[in-house]
Amino acid sequence: MTTDELTAVDVDLLAVDTLRFLAADMVQAANSGHPGMPMGAAPMAWALWSRHLKHDPADPDWADRDRFVLSAGHGSALLYSLLHVFGYDLPLAELAAFRQLGSRTPGHPEVGHTPGVETTTGPLGQGLAMAVGLALAERMTHARHPEITDHHTYAIVGDGCLMEGVSHEAASLAGHLGLGRLVVLWDDNAITIDGSTALSTSDDQLARFAAYGWHTVTVTDGTDVEAIDAALRAAKADPRPSFVAVRTVIGHGAPGVEGTSAVHGSPLGEPVLAAARARAGWDLPPFSVPDAVTEVCRLLAGEGAARHAEWRDAFTAYAAGAPDRAADFTRARARRLPGELSGTLAAIAEGRSRATRQSSQDCLIALTGLLPELVGGSADLAGSTGTATGAALVTREDFAGSVIAFGIREFAMAAVLNGISLHGGFRTWGSTFLVFSDYLRPALRLAALMGQPVIHVLTHDSVAVGEDGPTHQPVEHVESLRLIPGLQVLRPADEAETVEAWRRAISRTDGPTALILSRQSLPALPIVPNATHLKTASAGADRSGLSREREEGGAVQVEIVATGSEVSLAMEVAERLASGGITTRVVSAMDRSLYVPDRSVPRVSIEAGVTSGWRGLVDLAIGIDEFGASGPGPAVLAHVGLTTEAVTAQITALLSELET
Amino acid sequence: MTTDELTAVDVDLLAVDTLRFLAADMVQAANSGHPGMPMGAAPMAWALWSRHLKHDPADPDWADRDRFVLSAGHGSALLYSLLHVFGYDLPLAELAAFRQLGSRTPGHPEVGHTPGVETTTGPLGQGLAMAVGLALAERMTHARHPEITDHHTYAIVGDGCLMEGVSHEAASLAGHLGLGRLVVLWDDNAITIDGSTALSTSDDQLARFAAYGWHTVTVTDGTDVEAIDAALRAAKADPRPSFVAVRTVIGHGAPGVEGTSAVHGSPLGEPVLAAARARAGWDLPPFSVPDAVTEVCRLLAGEGAARHAEWRDAFTAYAAGAPDRAADFTRARARRLPGELSGTLAAIAEGRSRATRQSSQDCLIALTGLLPELVGGSADLAGSTGTATGAALVTREDFAGSVIAFGIREFAMAAVLNGISLHGGFRTWGSTFLVFSDYLRPALRLAALMGQPVIHVLTHDSVAVGEDGPTHQPVEHVESLRLIPGLQVLRPADEAETVEAWRRAISRTDGPTALILSRQSLPALPIVPNATHLKTASAGADRSGLSREREEGGAVQVEIVATGSEVSLAMEVAERLASGGITTRVVSAMDRSLYVPDRSVPRVSIEAGVTSGWRGLVDLAIGIDEFGASGPGPAVLAHVGLTTEAVTAQITALLSELET
Repeated sequence: MTTDELTAVDVDLLAVDTLRFLAADMVQAANSGHPGMPMGAAPMAWALWSRHLKHDPADPDWADRDRFVLSAGHGSALLYSLLHVFGYDLPLAELAAFRQLGSRTPGHPEVGHTPGVETTTGPLGQGLAMAVGLALAERMTHARHPEITDHHTYAIVGDGCLMEGVSHEAASLAGHLGLGRLVVLWDDNAITIDGSTALSTSDDQLARFAAYGWHTVTVTDGTDVEAIDAALRAAKADPRPSFVAVRTVIGHGAPGVEGTSAVHGSPLGEPVLAAARARAGWDLPPFSVPDAVTEVCRLLAGEGAARHAEWRDAFTAYAAGAPDRAADFTRARARRLPGELSGTLAAIAEGRSRATRQSSQDCLIALTGLLPELVGGSADLAGSTGTATGAALVTREDFAGSVIAFGIREFAMAAVLNGISLHGGFRTWGSTFLVFSDYLRPALRLAALMGQPVIHVLTHDSVAVGEDGPTHQPVEHVESLRLIPGLQVLRPADEAETVEAWRRAISRTDGPTALILSRQSLPALPIVPNATHLKTASAGADRSGLSREREEGGAVQVEIVATGSEVSLAMEVAERLASGGITTRVVSAMDRSLYVPDRSVPRVSIEAGVTSGWRGLVDLAIGIDEFGASGPGPAVLAHVGLTTEAVTAQITALLSELET
Repeated sequence: MTTDELTAVDVDLLAVDTLRFLAADMVQAANSGHPGMPMGAAPMAWALWSRHLKHDPADPDWADRDRFVLSAGHGSALLYSLLHVFGYDLPLAELAAFRQLGSRTPGHPEVGHTPGVETTTGPLGQGLAMAVGLALAERMTHARHPEITDHHTYAIVGDGCLMEGVSHEAASLAGHLGLGRLVVLWDDNAITIDGSTALSTSDDQLARFAAYGWHTVTVTDGTDVEAIDAALRAAKADPRPSFVAVRTVIGHGAPGVEGTSAVHGSPLGEPVLAAARARAGWDLPPFSVPDAVTEVCRLLAGEGAARHAEWRDAFTAYAAGAPDRAADFTRARARRLPGELSGTLAAIAEGRSRATRQSSQDCLIALTGLLPELVGGSADLAGSTGTATGAALVTREDFAGSVIAFGIREFAMAAVLNGISLHGGFRTWGSTFLVFSDYLRPALRLAALMGQPVIHVLTHDSVAVGEDGPTHQPVEHVESLRLIPGLQVLRPADEAETVEAWRRAISRTDGPTALILSRQSLPALPIVPNATHLKTASAGADRSGLSREREEGGAVQVEIVATGSEVSLAMEVAERLASGGITTRVVSAMDRSLYVPDRSVPRVSIEAGVTSGWRGLVDLAIGIDEFGASGPGPAVLAHVGLTTEAVTAQITALLSELET
């Protein structure tokens, strides 16, 4: 059969029903999941995948493939069904194991877990924001490698995605940057978990997206594959990002429950599923794919493979004509760093006494010069966070720059960075004040879950911020970031440690890093090269920068462990204690997870933040378990007891207490 | 002088310049702060406060006053200047102590700290969302007490507020609910910290707000007090919420720097400040208020006091005609609970084995019946979180209900609840899945900082969520909530503890509470009335529900402390250990901050989340320090080692180790 012949048997309807019933069967077999979204959105997904999506199921990593994001991640059964019928490495057995431990078909799509899944979605709104990142990455790649870059980014979003605030931030940024290769399909089913969307929203979504500078189109019948196809063509033809509103019926075809929230998050149940089969004239057993559908998908996949082959030829030509640029393309996609990295960073560590955000700025400037793939930006705090590198801005006219002005949109910044990182070919960073990490936390969690090496520069890291007061003074934030599994949290104590922190951040390829930096100046600290009280990241690894210790005189009587700005405070305290005849070891635990307490001596921690995470490591945890206050930094530090005098007194009291 | 006579000397211009120079002087004296916003926005603030705002500076707590929110909280100097000139208890000495420790003029406005400050602002966008809450509370109060309720809510927002995602969520909700008494003034100065707004946004804000169902107006000259006044009159006349775009120049009147980001967040410096004075013909020394301004403000304050007196008469009449309703009004504003509370809750604790979210639902239903002031809603998870109480919905047609359908807008939900709580007269609750507490975390922090008793019902509290997978399985969240100073975090183990948790949540009047509840059913546990291993909240307090202990046989050999669903696991483990001859004490630490470890015996904690916060309390912290996985709940729990067998083995191994 040819594609034309197949079309004659209305393969569209057949394919759409295949997707619908595969999804419903998966949910039914799992007795868990969301059948409504797949059944309503199957036609738009089919129109997109069969007539527009450029992909090669045999190679999900093709650099120039179109990206597809299911922002409404609860509809995962639809995505898995698509991947299966198009021949991705996702056999029916995996569909049948939907939502079971160890299957490749988890409850929500997880990137890296399932071939063909581009992003982890489920936390609503973030898929849309990551799609903006993917589309931005395409333009940025195109600016660097126009000969081999020409793809689109598609997303299907639900009502929930559009209610979430991050949809505003991301859509506004996409409109501002004119990301014309971004096409967002809105599964407009007017139903949320609690019922009709009329319960909670009256937004005119088309007008809203138009206000962001988007092109908008409406498809009034979401089962009309031709109409959806036409809308997609119009979307691609328009130079603006496109918002395609597709009116659908949730749980389409499920008698008695379609169009209601009852089909959102529960299996249809055997009777309803049987009735749906009967109504559709679908007399195939569960998990069936008609041969005609298999065949058309095989042909379509073949077309994708052919386009991939053409691209390979183009890449070969590109590599022949511009070997350096092609090599850079390949290197960046592999997340390999050039050999000059160590030298570049070593050139920075001059040991100046200044704010770690300032030292960080030099690192970022040096790395930006070295790594063309290093891109990022600030949520409107470039100057304050030490991320104003002077590198060119990305604009809608020119995407060759490496700095994105994210605006006051922390959450979208983090989610867009995740998207750029997922796209491949880039290393990404963002910046804001540490206290506003709360605004982007959901995307940081997702970066950790997805293993994306996004670097967050988080400055103004304690109450030493001073006058801006408690709304701007982080207290619980360093500790709360340490709780996110897989997030590397580094709080360097001085310039040398800041350089080391950047080395670790940029060297890490499988997860995010938070760099916690000071607003205020910090003294350069002496280095003790053979520190024994910190684990190395791996056996034989370079330990430089891991430790600042002060260990003088006789046997150590107390170990003080501190991070960031409190290391220099600890040094002063140690000096004071020495004058009282007490020998102190000071350990700088830039990465607390590497700190190994010396349990043979009394231990004290000092960190300008909540203490609960330290209490298992030390005998006395000195910190701040309350909100800060507005006043000059030194006054606030004194107010919370973080002075040499107050800390020395606390430690002396501890030692007296332990003696008795 | 009469008001008319004063107007004749162009007191408007005089007053506006007074506000400008007071603010600039404050920032200059502090050598820290934001002069640009006050200088640009002074005319709109003056137009609002002199011609519209209904308030009585002598009594900032007047229930029916208009509310004013400075969402652009960095412009605090403007607000303090307004409060001073209108005669609030904020003398010049406090303005001169701007941003100093202990002053009443902190860097960002802090409610409860300064008379007349309605909300704590600074974290951008949240002021707008709290203003929506205040405006909603006005309508809800009006529905209950129409005779004594008739006020407006005004907010000044900046570009940053409008870029933040929460502005979308909140504005969309306000449009949906038709909050016509909400008037938002946009300080459209086209400048952010990093420069021109054109760097990062191209939004058509008027079209955007119109898409939300708002009325919009533009004032093209932000120094034209008459034009602003006219726009405010139009805004109040329109039945929709109003968005008034006022084109301003940041740092208006500061030669050489006005209209640039240079005046955003730094003092002008003496030379520029002197030049500004010269240009304005302002030859008064720093911190001056011309007599004419003092006089007109005194007259205006007098008008406010007269309206307040009229209101007091109206309230007296109301109390005479409807004493019960008036008493309820007064009781609710005082956050006093009726005496029936204990009985109402005691009637619930039947000790059924079921999910704590289900037990919680009964508490919420009972409390809603008892407390007409108890209002709240879910971010589209009413059914799932056990917050579908059957109480009437709040709609744009009828605000008498007690349930708000917040839609999929967690952040706005939390911020709007803060606003309702700040308004007074209500107790508030919200609900979503625990994992999505990340989305609302910034507002929860602000609730804690402001001491607002908002109750958050956070369910699906562990990997036992199961099939939805790691995006929906909280791991770090309980611990991360415990880090927020002043947030009461309660994770009850069964129905009786859930009732006790609600009792504590509703009894607390000075800070927020997070109720952490299970999706899955939990067995009712035996109560040990005389538990000795948990601190009481205060000496002599009722300790019922604080503790579930199992302490049998001889001397205790190991103490297991657990929370929520893991208490029943601990009980099973204790039974298993007992069969091996080991006597175990099990402690349920619903509120971990009250747990006092028995350091005379080995201790183990069990909680289905990250362990770092437990390590200082126990010898072995059993938990989950990685992301979960998609699969049936019991399979996932087994995967992470939270089974009776695995935990028993770990504890047995610990005891063997300690013996040797």
